Amino acid sequence: MLKPLGDRVIIELVESEEKTASGIVLPDSAKEKPQEGKVVAVGTGRVLESGERVAPELTVEDRIIFSKYAGTEVKYQGTEYLILRESDILAVVSK
Amino acid sequence: MLKPLGDRVIIELVESEEKTASGIVLPDSAKEKPQEGKVVAVGTGRVLESGERVAPELTVEDRIIFSKYAGTEVKYQGTEYLILRESDILAVVSK
Amino acid sequence: MLKPLGDRVIIELVESEEKTASGIVLPDSAKEKPQEGKVVAVGTGRVLESGERVAPELTVEDRIIFSKYAGTEVKYQGTEYLILRESDILAVVSK
Amino acid sequence: MLKPLGDRVIIELVESEEKTASGIVLPDSAKEKPQEGKVVAVGTGRVLESGERVAPELTVEDRIIFSKYAGTEVKYQGTEYLILRESDILAVVSK
Amino acid sequence: MLKPLGDRVIIELVESEEKTASGIVLPDSAKEKPQEGKVVAVGTGRVLESGERVAPELTVEDRIIFSKYAGTEVKYQGTEYLILRESDILAVVSK
Amino acid sequence: MLKPLGDRVIIELVESEEKTASGIVLPDSAKEKPQEGKVVAVGTGRVLESGERVAPELTVEDRIIFSKYAGTEVKYQGTEYLILRESDILAVVSK
Amino acid sequence: MLKPLGDRVIIELVESEEKTASGIVLPDSAKEKPQEGKVVAVGTGRVLESGERVAPELTVEDRIIFSKYAGTEVKYQGTEYLILRESDILAVVSK
Repeated sequence: MLKPLGDRVIIELVESEEKTASGIVLPDSAKEKPQEGKVVAVGTGRVLESGERVAPELTVEDRIIFSKYAGTEVKYQGTEYLILRESDILAVVSK
Repeated sequence: MLKPLGDRVIIELVESEEKTASGIVLPDSAKEKPQEGKVVAVGTGRVLESGERVAPELTVEDRIIFSKYAGTEVKYQGTEYLILRESDILAVVSK
Repeated sequence: MLKPLGDRVIIELVESEEKTASGIVLPDSAKEKPQEGKVVAVGTGRVLESGERVAPELTVEDRIIFSKYAGTEVKYQGTEYLILRESDILAVVSK
Repeated sequence: MLKPLGDRVIIELVESEEKTASGIVLPDSAKEKPQEGKVVAVGTGRVLESGERVAPELTVEDRIIFSKYAGTEVKYQGTEYLILRESDILAVVSK
Repeated sequence: MLKPLGDRVIIELVESEEKTASGIVLPDSAKEKPQEGKVVAVGTGRVLESGERVAPELTVEDRIIFSKYAGTEVKYQGTEYLILRESDILAVVSK
Repeated sequence: MLKPLGDRVIIELVESEEKTASGIVLPDSAKEKPQEGKVVAVGTGRVLESGERVAPELTVEDRIIFSKYAGTEVKYQGTEYLILRESDILAVVSK
Repeated sequence: MLKPLGDRVIIELVESEEKTASGIVLPDSAKEKPQEGKVVAVGTGRVLESGERVAPELTVEDRIIFSKYAGTEVKYQGTEYLILRESDILAVVSK
């Protein structure tokens, strides 16, 4: 398993079929385009200058929307993942 | 439903007809142009270096003016939204 | 009415006739040129990393000088306003 | 009268005749050139992230040397002033 | 032995054969590509503005994924190492 | 006399003859070149975000090495000075 | 003697012969190349925004690896030194 460091999270991209199911449709425009994913691992959180560690807002299995150009791709045991900072995640799709 | 993270808010664009009703007219000039919207969801707020979380100034249903080039567009269950940081919102149109 | 967020203020531009009355004349030089305005609304103030909110130095009706290229124009109920950060305001013209 | 905001100060340029009197001569070189001025108004001071306001080091009537390219020019009731941040002021000429 | 300073870590690159064994395959895309390594030495950690030192999340022998363009190469006693900041390390491959 | 503000110091350049005496020779290379000077005035020190003022490390008469391209030149009562920030000073030449 | 200010350290470059002895060989690649040196003087340390001074991690006589393009060269009493910030030093070569 991959365990992200600090304020990073690991997500799996959500395929187009699923995207329709959850109701997200990405508009075709000149603006920055978001993408949908599912959280598979969450880091320990960002450390503030005060020494406090901020508990991540996300939990595993959350459906999220993130900025398309954020993060680093990695393939692990046959599955493709994306490693992002929590601050690159825009919103959670609540059930 | 979409739930924004941190200091983000989700807004729905206000159409031109409504814009006339609320009294906002956007001038035609060389300066950065603002747009009007309605808040549909508010995040948990920004975390300061001291560890404190700043309560958002906005609440759902607020009519707001925001900078035109800010944010990320997303279409969810047939409606178009914009996900912004609270700091990209300039003013609230009070009733 | 428009209510600015955080450390923002809303001002109305002061016309040239009034400018003569208050004694401000803008010199013609290569430097950044300031402009005169009147404060019509003040935000709640900037939040510091310590969690404290800084009370704005300005109050409604203050005559102010601001940097010409700062802010966002907006027309509301027939009047043109400018939304600025308090830090873009250089000085108050005291009566 | 003009009252500067925050860590800003308002100065009047000191003419060349006076410059000779106080003993400052500006060398002709490729480096950034300073200029001499007299403080006419001082702001309330910079607010730190801790919430503390730093008392300005300058007082009205101080003769100062400042960086030539800093600040914003303004003419008020027939006199030309320059509005600067205290951090753009290099030194005080003590009597 | 090499002892890294502050929030730096020293890693040994993991060869392709081993990469297959641990299950990481690097996809061929336009995005930033990560690489796999093994931690051989860890610094004392980053010092916060509060004076606190953040204990590193990594320990010697951790298998990690890092951003390809990060760090400084060094060859020491015949082995090639890479010196990185902990923040350039994306995730730990847990056993 | 000139009194520097905040974390600034005023130095007098040390001439080449003296430079030989104190043992500093500036190498001819492509790297940033330092210069030698003598401290003639020290400011009150930098104010930290905590409100504390950092006592300057330098005192008047210290022989120092500074980065060649730092600071602002000023001629006062026939002598040329350089006004620098303490952080532009690299080292003290101890006697 | 030269005494560095704040978080600076003064190092003497280690010649190639010695480099072989300590086991460091610098690879020939497109990446940023480190160099080896010996610490000859250490400053008082960096002052944090909290007012605390961080004790330097290095001590005189430490063998270190630093980034090739960092620092300022100075020749003092016939020896060439390099003045660096502690943060430009990557690792200590322990005996």
